Amino acid sequence: MSSAPGPHRTPLTDEEVRALDAHWRAANYLAAGQIYLLDNPLLREPLTPDHIKPRLLGHWGTSPGLNLVYTHLNRIIRRNGTDTLCVWGPGHGGPAVLAGSWLDGSYSEIAPDVGRDEEGMRRLFRQFSFPGGVPSHVAPEVPGSIHEGGELGYSLAHAYGAAFDNPDLLVACVIGDGEAETGPLAASWHSHRFLDPRHDGAVLPILHLNGYKIANPALLARLPEDELDTLLRGYGHEPLHVAGDDPEHVHRALAAALDTAVDRVRELQHTARTGGDKGGGRPRWPVIVLRTPKGWTGPGEVDGLPVEGTWRSHQVPLPGVRDNPAHLAQLERWLRSYRPDDLFDADGRPRPEVLACVPEGARRLGATPHANGGLLVRGLPLPPLEEFSVPVDAPGRTTHEPTAVLGELLARVMADTAKRRDFRLVGPDETASNRLTAVYGASGKAWQEHTLPTDEDLDPHGRVMEVLSEHLCQGWLEGYVLTGRHGLFSCYEAFVHIVDSMVNQHIKWLTTSRRLSWRAPLPSLNYLLTSHVWRQDHNGFSHQDPGFVDHVLNKSPEVVRVYLPPDANTLLCTAERVLASRDRVNVVVAGKQPGFDWLTLDQARAHCARGAGIWEWAGTEDPGREPDVVLACAGDVPTQETLAAAQLLREHLPDVAVRVVNVVDMTRLMPAGEHPHGMTPAEYDALFTTDRPVIFAYHGYPWLIHRLAYRHAGHAHLHVRGYKESGTTTTPFDMVVRNDLDRYRLVMDVVDRVPGLAVRAAGVRQAMADVRTRHHAWIREHGTDLPEVADWSWRT
Amino acid sequence: MSSAPGPHRTPLTDEEVRALDAHWRAANYLAAGQIYLLDNPLLREPLTPDHIKPRLLGHWGTSPGLNLVYTHLNRIIRRNGTDTLCVWGPGHGGPAVLAGSWLDGSYSEIAPDVGRDEEGMRRLFRQFSFPGGVPSHVAPEVPGSIHEGGELGYSLAHAYGAAFDNPDLLVACVIGDGEAETGPLAASWHSHRFLDPRHDGAVLPILHLNGYKIANPALLARLPEDELDTLLRGYGHEPLHVAGDDPEHVHRALAAALDTAVDRVRELQHTARTGGDKGGGRPRWPVIVLRTPKGWTGPGEVDGLPVEGTWRSHQVPLPGVRDNPAHLAQLERWLRSYRPDDLFDADGRPRPEVLACVPEGARRLGATPHANGGLLVRGLPLPPLEEFSVPVDAPGRTTHEPTAVLGELLARVMADTAKRRDFRLVGPDETASNRLTAVYGASGKAWQEHTLPTDEDLDPHGRVMEVLSEHLCQGWLEGYVLTGRHGLFSCYEAFVHIVDSMVNQHIKWLTTSRRLSWRAPLPSLNYLLTSHVWRQDHNGFSHQDPGFVDHVLNKSPEVVRVYLPPDANTLLCTAERVLASRDRVNVVVAGKQPGFDWLTLDQARAHCARGAGIWEWAGTEDPGREPDVVLACAGDVPTQETLAAAQLLREHLPDVAVRVVNVVDMTRLMPAGEHPHGMTPAEYDALFTTDRPVIFAYHGYPWLIHRLAYRHAGHAHLHVRGYKESGTTTTPFDMVVRNDLDRYRLVMDVVDRVPGLAVRAAGVRQAMADVRTRHHAWIREHGTDLPEVADWSWRT
Repeated sequence: MSSAPGPHRTPLTDEEVRALDAHWRAANYLAAGQIYLLDNPLLREPLTPDHIKPRLLGHWGTSPGLNLVYTHLNRIIRRNGTDTLCVWGPGHGGPAVLAGSWLDGSYSEIAPDVGRDEEGMRRLFRQFSFPGGVPSHVAPEVPGSIHEGGELGYSLAHAYGAAFDNPDLLVACVIGDGEAETGPLAASWHSHRFLDPRHDGAVLPILHLNGYKIANPALLARLPEDELDTLLRGYGHEPLHVAGDDPEHVHRALAAALDTAVDRVRELQHTARTGGDKGGGRPRWPVIVLRTPKGWTGPGEVDGLPVEGTWRSHQVPLPGVRDNPAHLAQLERWLRSYRPDDLFDADGRPRPEVLACVPEGARRLGATPHANGGLLVRGLPLPPLEEFSVPVDAPGRTTHEPTAVLGELLARVMADTAKRRDFRLVGPDETASNRLTAVYGASGKAWQEHTLPTDEDLDPHGRVMEVLSEHLCQGWLEGYVLTGRHGLFSCYEAFVHIVDSMVNQHIKWLTTSRRLSWRAPLPSLNYLLTSHVWRQDHNGFSHQDPGFVDHVLNKSPEVVRVYLPPDANTLLCTAERVLASRDRVNVVVAGKQPGFDWLTLDQARAHCARGAGIWEWAGTEDPGREPDVVLACAGDVPTQETLAAAQLLREHLPDVAVRVVNVVDMTRLMPAGEHPHGMTPAEYDALFTTDRPVIFAYHGYPWLIHRLAYRHAGHAHLHVRGYKESGTTTTPFDMVVRNDLDRYRLVMDVVDRVPGLAVRAAGVRQAMADVRTRHHAWIREHGTDLPEVADWSWRT
Repeated sequence: MSSAPGPHRTPLTDEEVRALDAHWRAANYLAAGQIYLLDNPLLREPLTPDHIKPRLLGHWGTSPGLNLVYTHLNRIIRRNGTDTLCVWGPGHGGPAVLAGSWLDGSYSEIAPDVGRDEEGMRRLFRQFSFPGGVPSHVAPEVPGSIHEGGELGYSLAHAYGAAFDNPDLLVACVIGDGEAETGPLAASWHSHRFLDPRHDGAVLPILHLNGYKIANPALLARLPEDELDTLLRGYGHEPLHVAGDDPEHVHRALAAALDTAVDRVRELQHTARTGGDKGGGRPRWPVIVLRTPKGWTGPGEVDGLPVEGTWRSHQVPLPGVRDNPAHLAQLERWLRSYRPDDLFDADGRPRPEVLACVPEGARRLGATPHANGGLLVRGLPLPPLEEFSVPVDAPGRTTHEPTAVLGELLARVMADTAKRRDFRLVGPDETASNRLTAVYGASGKAWQEHTLPTDEDLDPHGRVMEVLSEHLCQGWLEGYVLTGRHGLFSCYEAFVHIVDSMVNQHIKWLTTSRRLSWRAPLPSLNYLLTSHVWRQDHNGFSHQDPGFVDHVLNKSPEVVRVYLPPDANTLLCTAERVLASRDRVNVVVAGKQPGFDWLTLDQARAHCARGAGIWEWAGTEDPGREPDVVLACAGDVPTQETLAAAQLLREHLPDVAVRVVNVVDMTRLMPAGEHPHGMTPAEYDALFTTDRPVIFAYHGYPWLIHRLAYRHAGHAHLHVRGYKESGTTTTPFDMVVRNDLDRYRLVMDVVDRVPGLAVRAAGVRQAMADVRTRHHAWIREHGTDLPEVADWSWRT
C-alpha cells in the first residue's frame, strides 16, 4: 500500500508517537487475545493448545483499524477536552472496542470482576464469544456504545441522531468500507444538510477503507482515489486522506488529520454560533478517509496464502491453532510481536506509556454518559390533555381528524422543549400529509440548504425532520433516543416496513440493555403509523400493508407495545402514555381522515388504562346474562364498521343480545404469561365469553388475532375479519367490502354464527347481501359510496 | 427558473420541435383529463360540474416531466431503432405513462375498449383512479411498465436488473428528486460498477429535478449545481444538464442531451465489445439531469398561492372544481391551453403531427416485450438431480453442508446458461459464507473496478453478483426476473428483513399481473435463506431472526411459497421445484453447516411432492392404530432435535407410540381453502390426528404454526416449540436449549402432554431435566456442547 502524506505537517513528537503506538499495540494484543486465549493471557509460558479456546469466534480483520481510531480519539479528547462519542460502524469488531474500554478503565467499572490486571485480562479474554460471557459484537454489553453494528448500514445515521441538539458533543463515526455499500449508509452522507451548526454537535465521519468485506474487495476502496474524493465532495464534505501500512507514518498522518478536522469543526461552529443566521451558508464538514490494511499487524500469510491485507483476515486468520502446531507457533509469534512485556507490567497492568493518551473520567470513550442516554434523560413536559381533547356529547355525533388533534399536542410539546431541545419529530416528507401541521407553529423543518421565497416552514434550527428516507428517519431517531432524548416517527403505515430490520435491531438492543443494571432506561422509540391501509385513496394497493404490527409482535414482549386508538381522544391518551414511557418500542396506528369521536377524554383515559373494554352504550346485552354474540374491534375503521353493524343488528334483530368490545392495546389479547399486558383467563373470558361467537373486526391481517389469542378458552368461537390483500385505488367503503370487513358482512357473520339465527334471520342476511350487491353496481356507476354509507352516523 | 444551454448544439428542426411539443401537449392534456374528467373528454362543450369526477385522485406534479421524457424517448427510439425500456421512478405519475401508451397505441392493444378515439379517450379518463377502473400508479395494468414506483427507491436498481444480459437494450430510468433521497436509490448509483459493457445493455439515468416532494423541497434539487455535478461524477457518471421552463428551449436541449447520451452509450459499448478485455477501464456512462418545474404547464396560481413550480402541484392542483366555479373555469382554461383541437381530429384521434415521433411495433415503450418478460422467458436447463444428490444408505449416518451440495447444482445451471446468459445469483457478499462457492467454477463475480493480484473469482463478465446491499441484490434481481430471466438471492436469514418492503411490492406486482391475461407468467423470485437463526456462531443475537417467513405469509397465497428442506437431498428437490416455477416468490430456508442426511433422492422427491409426510422409519407407531403422540418438525435443526427426541423416547419409553412428521412446504399446514397448497381436513387429520398431542418443533417463531393451523381439528392439541428471541454468541446446542427446542425438552413435553405419562414417566422426565442442567454447567466450564450431543447420530 502506498503511503500518502497527511494533510498537515505532523504535530507529534517521537515520544508521542511511541506512546500512541504502545496503546495501539496493547489494544491489538488484547483484541487477538480475546479471539484466541482461554488462559495464559500474558504469555508467561509458551502457548499450548490448552490455552486456546475450543471454538474460535470473532472478527480480527477490522480490529486493528478500530483500535487505531480508539487510540487517536483518546489523544484528541485529551488535547481538546471535547465530549466525544464514537459510533463504531464495524461493530462486529467487538474485541477492539472491548480492548479500548478495558484500557481506559471504563470496562472494569461496569464489570468489576474484569479488572485492569492479569486476572482481569484472563477474564476479558475468556468471556469473549464464550457461552455465558459477552457477545462478539459491540453490543449493549460494551460500554461507550450506542450501536452494535451487526447489520451494517446505520452507523452514520446513528451518529447524526446523537449529534442533534448536543451542541458540545463531537460524534466520531467509523464507517467500514463494507457498510459503505449499503443504501442507508449512502443516504446518510447527506445528513449534514439537516445539521444545525449552532444547536447541534458535530459528526466526524471516518471512512475506514481496509479494502475488503467478508469475501470480496470493498467497492469504495477500489475507486480511483480522485473519484472517491470527488464523491465525498459531492456529498458536501471536505475529505482528509490518510493512508499507509507503516505504523509511524500512519500515526503521524492520522494525528495531523484529526487535529485538522477537529480544528475545522470548531472553526465552523464558531462561525455559525457567532455570525448570525445569514453567515456563510452551509458548512463543509471534514471527513477522514483512512486507508490501512485489513487485519493489519496480524499474520501476513497462512498456509502459503496472503492473509494480512486481504479478505482472509476477516474473522479468525489462524483457524487451526488447537490442532495445528504450526498455526499455534504462528499465533504465538504474532502475539509476541506486540511485545506484551513492554505494554503490561508484572501484574498485567498497562504501563504508563500505554495509558499516556487515555483521557480522564467521563471524557473516556467508554465512560461518556451520552452512550448511556438514560443517565441524561429528562422527562418530557406533557401538558394536560384537557387542553387538546375534543368535546364528545354523545358517541358518533362529531368527527375529527385524529392525527390533526394529536398535532396540537405535539406542537405544545415542541414549544415547551424549545429551550431544552430534547424532542424531535421525524418523518419521510409526510408530516403535513399526516395532518401534523400544527407542529410548524412551534418548530420549523430542519434545513441547511438553499431556500426560495415560496418555501414554507423551513428553518435551519428546526426540530421537525423531513427527508424522503425512512432509513434516515429511523436511524436519526434511534441515535437521538439512545443518547437520552425524545421523539416520534410519523410514517405511512405500509412503508414503515422499509425499516423492519432496523427496528428489529433496536428492539434487540433494548431487550439486552434492559437487563444490564448499569444501563439506565431510555426514552422509547415511538411510531405513529397513519395514512393506513383503509385510506390510501390516492395510491392504492402498493400503499396497503398493515403488517408492521405482526412484525414487531414477534419480538421481545417486554419491549414491544402496539396501540390502535379508535378515535381522537383515545389517540391523545395513547400518545401521553407512549411519550412518557421508557425502554419501549411503541407502535400507534391511527387515522388521519375525519373519523367519528366515540369517547370523552375521561372515557378514553379509562379505556386506555384497561387496554380493552366493553362499550356498553353500543351493545344490547342484558347486564344479567351472557350476550348472544360479541362484536369485537380494533382500529378506527373496523370500529366504525362494527358500530354500524351493531346498529343494524339493533334495528333488524333487536332480540339478539350484542356486546361490543373495543381493543386499543393489542397485547392485551395475549395470555398473561406471554406478555406483561396480557390478560388472565378470567379477564379474557369476562370480555369475550368462553362460548359465544366473537366476530372480530381487526385493522390488519386477521390471522394475527388468532396468533395472539389462540390459548384463550373462547378461541374456537373467534371469527376474525381484516385486511386480506385485496385492494386498489377505490373508495373507503369499497375497501372494507373487498376485504369482507364491512358492516353488512359483519351482520351476515352474526347470522351465520349465532346458533338458531340462520333460519330465523335469513331475510335479514339476504337484505345485507343485497346492499353489498347494490354497492358494487353503485360504485361502478357513480364512483362514490352508497349514500346510506356516506351519510351514516351512530344513532342511539 | 434559469435556462442553461444544452450540452450540444441542437439537432432539431423547427418542425421537429413543433411535433415533439404537440406530442407533449397531447400527453399533458390526457394526463390532466384522467385526473379530472368523467365526460366531455375533448371539451366539445363548456365544462360543467357533471363532467368532473366525484373524487379527484392522482398526481399531476410529476406528470409533465414524465410526459416530456416519454415524448423524447419516442424520438430517440425512432432515430436509433434501439430496443428501449423505460423505468418510471415517479410511478405515482400514472396518468403520464398511461397517456404515452394511449398515444403510441399500445394501451388500446391491451385494452381494446379504450381505443385511440374520442370514446376511447372518454374511457381512458373515466377509468383512471375510478372504482373498477385502473389504479393511479404505473401498476402492472400499465403496458410497458415493470415498476410501479409507489414505494420509491428502487427504480435505478430495477433498471440495472433489466439491463444485465440484455446487450441490445437501452434502459432509460427516470429518477424523481424525491426518490433520490432514499437509501436504496443512493446505493444504486454505483450499480454501473457491476455492469458489463460487453454482455449487458446500458442504463441511462434521467435525474428529474422538479424541485419538490409532497410538501418539501427536494434535497438534490437544492444543492449548488456544481456540488450535484461533482456528486454524479463521484458516482462515476458523466452528467449532461438540461434545465428550463421554456418548452422550446427544453425540447431542443433535451433532444441534444439524449442524442449525446445515446451516441456516447454506443461508443462505450462499441469500444468494450471490440477492444478486448483490457480496453480502457470502466466506462463513464452518461446521466441526464433534467430540471423543469413541478406541475409545469398546470395552474400557475390557485386561490392566490403559487402552484406550478411548487410542491402544491403534487397531487390535484385545483381541488375544488366540482363546487367552485372559479376553479372549474380555471381548469377549463388550463385544459384548453393545450389546444386540444390542434392535437386530436374530429373523431378524437391524435393528429399525424402528434404521432410523428412515435415509433412502430415492439419498439414502442408501451409495447416492448422486455416489460412483459414472460413473453421472452425460456425455461432454465435443470440437470438431473442424480448427478448432485448425496448417497444415503441409512438415515442420519452421514452429514453434508446442504447449501454446498446445492452450490454444485447451481454451478451446473450457471455453466449451462453460459451462452444464454439468463441466470444470475445475487447476494450481499455472502455467496462464499453461504457455501455456494462451487458456482465460481462456472462464473466469476461481476466486477468492473480495479483488481489486484490477490483477488479471486472477480470477472468483468461474471453473473454472480455480490454487493453489500440487500437492496441492490433484491432490486437487481427483481429487474432481471421482471424482464424474463432467472435468478436466486442467497441471504443471511436475519437480514433479508432489510428488503421486507421490497418483497411486499414484488408480491403485490405478481398478485396483480397474474390476473392480467396479457401479462405472461414470469420466472419466480427465489430466496435461499441460510446462515440461519440456529447457527450464528460468530455473531449472535443481532443475526437471529427467522421472521421473514411470517412476513411473506401475510401476502397473497397464490404467489407465496415457503420451504424448509431438512437435508441436502430435499434441498436439491426444492431448488429444482422453485427454479422451474413461475409467478411465485419462493422462500427456501436451509442450513449451511454440516447436517445429517435423512432422505435418499427418491425419498426426498416424494417428500417434496407431498410437502409434509410421516417418516415411518423414525417413529414407533403400529400401523393399525393412532400413535400416542406426534412429533412434528420443520427446518433442519428442529428435525435433528426431533429425531434425537424420538430416539430418546424409543430408548426410555418404548411403549409410547411415536409418529414423526416432517413438514417441508409450510403452506401445507394451512387449510385448503386458504392456500392452494393447503391440506383438506382429511389430509391434515391423517398426518396429525385430531386428538393426540402434537409436539411441533419449528425453525422460526412458534406462533406462526398456530396462525397457519388454527382452523384444523387437532389445533387444540398442538404444542409448538421454536425461536422465542433468546440468543447470544453461544454454541449450537445452547441455542436450542435457550429456546426450549432441544431434544430433552421435547421429551419432557411428550411426558407432560401424553395422558397418563406424567406419573409413570416422571423419572424419565427428571433424567431429561438433569441433562439440561448438566448442559448449563458444562458449557460455562468448557465452552462446548456436551459430548453426548456433539457426538450424537441417529441409531436404529
